[in-house]
Amino acid sequence: MRKTEQAVERCKTMSTLQKILGGKWKLEILYYIAFHDIRRFGALRRQLGEITESSLTKQLRELEADGFLVRHDFHEVPPRVEYTLTELGRSFMDVIAYMKTWGDENLPENK
Amino acid sequence: MRKTEQAVERCKTMSTLQKILGGKWKLEILYYIAFHDIRRFGALRRQLGEITESSLTKQLRELEADGFLVRHDFHEVPPRVEYTLTELGRSFMDVIAYMKTWGDENLPENK
Repeated sequence: MRKTEQAVERCKTMSTLQKILGGKWKLEILYYIAFHDIRRFGALRRQLGEITESSLTKQLRELEADGFLVRHDFHEVPPRVEYTLTELGRSFMDVIAYMKTWGDENLPENK
Repeated sequence: MRKTEQAVERCKTMSTLQKILGGKWKLEILYYIAFHDIRRFGALRRQLGEITESSLTKQLRELEADGFLVRHDFHEVPPRVEYTLTELGRSFMDVIAYMKTWGDENLPENK
């Protein structure tokens, strides 16, 4: 067996990134909040199309728990709730932008 | 309603990236193949720890179908199957590296 086939130490950063971004919608949710200023629950849901209400709620709660988003409840009737990026979330915009540039240039669908 | 709350055109690149990377293990699988030259099914499974055999099979097949990996079957007994990056997969290494640097610097676990 080649030496390289021995298990290496698990990379904690990659493991955390995987946990944070592994959700079915998280990258796209962060992208629309970050780059298109789409903040409201209903607007995010319309933007993503096929997502269910419970799925969007779950993903937003996880992104909030992971420190990427903050939830603002304006205590209005009808309810008005908005999501904005935290400082961590804003710093992640660079990663999304880098990834999008790569995708625009390399993914077959865009060629 | 603010103007920005209108739905914008769905970004195809982000939607594709989300589909490709949304799997529970894909980032980590690509990371270990790309940066630690871990190629064999069994070695990947040991590396990822909690992943089931059927889950790893599924994720590898999807990464192959999406053009990131190529599967080499050496037709040996016992079976020897290795996965390596395609040109597209190699080009994605930059994105993984960029993301990892961001994570090392920004994720609370690493501070």
